[in-house]
Amino acid sequence: MLESAVDTYLAALFDECHAIDDGTVADYIPELGKADPSWFAIAIATTDGHVYEVGDTNRSFTIQSISKPFVYGAALDIHGVSGVLERVGVEPTGNAFNAIAVDEETRRPFNPMVNAGAIVTTGLMPGDDTADREDRLLATLSSFAGRDLDVDEAVYASERGTGDRNRAMAYLMRSFGMVDHVEQVLDLYFRQCSTLVTCRDLATMAATLACSGINPTTRERVLGETNVERVLSIMSSCGMYDYAGEWGYTVGLPAKSGVSGGILAVLPGQLGIAAFSPPLDRRGNSVRGIEVFTRISRDLELHTQRARPRAGSAIRRSYRGNDVRSLRVRPPADVSALTAHGERIAVFELQGDLLFASTEPVHRAIAAVSGECDLIVLDLQRVRTIDLPASRILRGIVLGFEGVGATVLLAHAAPSDPRLRPLVESTAVRCFETTDDALQWCEDVVLGDAPAVASAALTDQPLLRAIDPLVLTAIDATIERRRFEPGELVVHEGDTADAIYFVLSGAVGVHLPLDDGTTCRIASFGPGVSFGEAALLDERVRSADVRVEEPTELGVLTLGAIDAIVVDHPALRAQLFHNLAQMLAGRLQGANAQLRALAR
Amino acid sequence: MLESAVDTYLAALFDECHAIDDGTVADYIPELGKADPSWFAIAIATTDGHVYEVGDTNRSFTIQSISKPFVYGAALDIHGVSGVLERVGVEPTGNAFNAIAVDEETRRPFNPMVNAGAIVTTGLMPGDDTADREDRLLATLSSFAGRDLDVDEAVYASERGTGDRNRAMAYLMRSFGMVDHVEQVLDLYFRQCSTLVTCRDLATMAATLACSGINPTTRERVLGETNVERVLSIMSSCGMYDYAGEWGYTVGLPAKSGVSGGILAVLPGQLGIAAFSPPLDRRGNSVRGIEVFTRISRDLELHTQRARPRAGSAIRRSYRGNDVRSLRVRPPADVSALTAHGERIAVFELQGDLLFASTEPVHRAIAAVSGECDLIVLDLQRVRTIDLPASRILRGIVLGFEGVGATVLLAHAAPSDPRLRPLVESTAVRCFETTDDALQWCEDVVLGDAPAVASAALTDQPLLRAIDPLVLTAIDATIERRRFEPGELVVHEGDTADAIYFVLSGAVGVHLPLDDGTTCRIASFGPGVSFGEAALLDERVRSADVRVEEPTELGVLTLGAIDAIVVDHPALRAQLFHNLAQMLAGRLQGANAQLRALAR
Repeated sequence: MLESAVDTYLAALFDECHAIDDGTVADYIPELGKADPSWFAIAIATTDGHVYEVGDTNRSFTIQSISKPFVYGAALDIHGVSGVLERVGVEPTGNAFNAIAVDEETRRPFNPMVNAGAIVTTGLMPGDDTADREDRLLATLSSFAGRDLDVDEAVYASERGTGDRNRAMAYLMRSFGMVDHVEQVLDLYFRQCSTLVTCRDLATMAATLACSGINPTTRERVLGETNVERVLSIMSSCGMYDYAGEWGYTVGLPAKSGVSGGILAVLPGQLGIAAFSPPLDRRGNSVRGIEVFTRISRDLELHTQRARPRAGSAIRRSYRGNDVRSLRVRPPADVSALTAHGERIAVFELQGDLLFASTEPVHRAIAAVSGECDLIVLDLQRVRTIDLPASRILRGIVLGFEGVGATVLLAHAAPSDPRLRPLVESTAVRCFETTDDALQWCEDVVLGDAPAVASAALTDQPLLRAIDPLVLTAIDATIERRRFEPGELVVHEGDTADAIYFVLSGAVGVHLPLDDGTTCRIASFGPGVSFGEAALLDERVRSADVRVEEPTELGVLTLGAIDAIVVDHPALRAQLFHNLAQMLAGRLQGANAQLRALAR
Repeated sequence: MLESAVDTYLAALFDECHAIDDGTVADYIPELGKADPSWFAIAIATTDGHVYEVGDTNRSFTIQSISKPFVYGAALDIHGVSGVLERVGVEPTGNAFNAIAVDEETRRPFNPMVNAGAIVTTGLMPGDDTADREDRLLATLSSFAGRDLDVDEAVYASERGTGDRNRAMAYLMRSFGMVDHVEQVLDLYFRQCSTLVTCRDLATMAATLACSGINPTTRERVLGETNVERVLSIMSSCGMYDYAGEWGYTVGLPAKSGVSGGILAVLPGQLGIAAFSPPLDRRGNSVRGIEVFTRISRDLELHTQRARPRAGSAIRRSYRGNDVRSLRVRPPADVSALTAHGERIAVFELQGDLLFASTEPVHRAIAAVSGECDLIVLDLQRVRTIDLPASRILRGIVLGFEGVGATVLLAHAAPSDPRLRPLVESTAVRCFETTDDALQWCEDVVLGDAPAVASAALTDQPLLRAIDPLVLTAIDATIERRRFEPGELVVHEGDTADAIYFVLSGAVGVHLPLDDGTTCRIASFGPGVSFGEAALLDERVRSADVRVEEPTELGVLTLGAIDAIVVDHPALRAQLFHNLAQMLAGRLQGANAQLRALAR
């Protein structure tokens, strides 16, 4: 296993920051004073559940104020934003986190990250009784950590015994009618602050916020997406107390710190990061923690205002129907017609997250070809999410085409996706399972309008070109005409290859088995073309299944019949090989052209 | 031209917000009071320079406080961050924007968005004299707008005549030694605030910040990337005065407003947005402007904490050397050897912005195959940027491979890119112009190690397989052996095709002309294979150039010579066509396999 540059970096960062021995362990809660100043840990959790860690990442300590954003998030999910905003504000305050101060005008604590606001928020936790409320609160924090958390009873007792400042705060708030049942709420608040977590837990909790509320380890949604935004906003403006301005300037990540020495920070969409080291600076933030985040943000270039990748366009690749063709093998006349008229078809492969800013360039790109193309395929296979504004832009494209008789084909679209429903309902839209199906449909439309249409006559079959009419008559007489129903297998993989098939009407598909037990269609054939010519070559074993797709008539020419005719007409053999080579050369040329178009 | 859903949306938004008639036009500067309350405009600028607009987007008004972040950015570029931080802090303040208040402890104004901090920042503009300083300041604002801006002399006179509050502020700051030349600096500050802009200008200025400091219209870098972060941080915490908390919660975009009724906001990496409407609320923000941004952020889902796409992995596609092959056409034995041993080669196509979070999964993916693969191709063709942390991760991969004798091949890498230099210097790294070149090099390594290597003997040539030894001797006698030097053309596009070429040693490439006058190599041939067999078929005109790549010996077999031999050995023709069909079938199978691998 290749050693990771990330692990190497974290090890060096750990050593350098461990050397710092400034700061004082918090002792206003006596139990906290027992922490060893040398404890130190750093953890980075990715959005796919991987955790990089160094130091005492599994040592338990009490979560303290870091619980606040998570309990606030739960309150938003339970009571809705207006229900919570009635009780707690969102404005930063210049005051200390434990100030006995509330906004008397609005009768609310300033924000949920100061103790006053956090106590009110804890009071919003519903439940039948005290135990039920505590269970729910612990379940909330546990869901973010991805494991069951417990309360440190010694710290809890210490908090309760020395929590007079918070008690004063709570009674002041009751005087304003901001909180009821002061002692019960305070008790729950002290237990909340005394919940045991590890540095690794904090990184996972942060990564859950980075993943829009889905825990990357359990894959469980634990907070609504819009409420994640709100929590992160509050952390940005109020998470680091009166260090918020400088933190935003130098570190630039939504964060929360606690007096036990933990700090967690979130890079939305990308990472959750946590550090733990008990000695604090005069503002109450971990000294080593601040240093860790200052360096990580600088070294890994994670500043929120920087690290955001430019969204760019959601178009992965686009091509026209004259450059790239469907897997349908068509007779030469149809191939020529598609080369001449296929530019009516435009395929746009979209990728990633369709957001406003990545999708409006899609509109512009489609608008730019809308004069020339009336068959627009949108391949959604690599699209991860479609947000509402993006779906509106796509709908605008569809509505624009509805009036002019153009068609939008969606490939790999789940019609049940609520974001796609307004599109799918349009008369201008058709849904296809794969882009190849959509492309083939478009080609059929183009060929239906084009002058040259292939006949199924044997004389038009490329394999039988330039053969003496007498010989052709002999061949025609030996060809057996057979009808097949959809789903029937014409050719089994592994069978002996002893005949060539001419499609007279209908269509067949060539299916290749895949490692996972499924099959994939690698080509299809319609009227005017032949398949199974490998029988003429050295490979006498069928390499794939051929399955009938619609009611089909095939002409079957056996090798035995050919051999019999060759006895009297020896030139037939060379002509068949010549024609076969000619066909294969054309198909190879087409495949190479597609490879080049796709490699662009 | 397809009508845009964005335009439709903006038109509706404009109508709905235009109906709002709350607020009062600012009149503390008399000239501002002349603004028409019905003026209204909205503009959205994209990072590729497109502007969506509605309303009075070309009406000029004075920029006022919206100038502050841009002048602050210029100060950071000129004096460096520490030089600026000595003079102006970064902490939000609960005070009004025009409060006569400074941080007496640090002897600095609290931040550059309040008037005190903005005046100090303006005083940092260097210059030989007053006129020079004004020129530079106007040039700064103009560079963000992408056009030359002017000062409104009437507003300037009005500002200067009524600017006593700012004058008091400035003199208080001088008492602390924070500013010199009070009247000169104030004068420049009033001219700065009186600079005329349009709503369209503001959107472009915001988009310049969204583009990391590059003006999307002029493509000129006007602010250093790191300083853009700092400006956006300050805008996030201090841009909307005492509405910052609620703005961050509901709109969630770094922003700045001014008393003339303008507001601009930035979605980093994606969009710049501006609104203009003179009537203000009691906090001094445009009433319609606040409504516009509240709705745009909600409707277009642009909240900073939400709209960030998940970075995901930078891997666009990866494949092994047994699935996808280079354009080198190889003899059957080599093809078999590559099918058997090509899994030693792993190709990773990377895309987009290589950041820490998108690149560490690349490390994990490569580490996962490092036991099986010792030839790792990194295709950088679609990589837009590589940040320093990402380059360190790539370097960690290279260093890890250096020790075990594996090779990392970089394709489409500019070795002069400073972010790649540490990689390129490693002995484990080789740079190639294209992925195909890199893949071919890897295949040669694999074939060099593999038991089966093709000889150049005629009997091993696939086209001459199973031919009677006597006939083969006759063919051998007619084959002309010719030597070619690198760069020589063997075959010209458009020439008559009258011979088949066997590669005896060396290598040739097939080049296809492109629309833009250049050519692209679509295949290459080495010892043991033939080219130009199309001469045997109906196409008697060369469809591409064949150019010699290294000193090469070719065997030339003319059609005339074949025809002469066929007279005595008529079976030769059928066998040649048979062999050709067999070769083409194999190549077609290979091309189809590549198409399937690439479509994944």
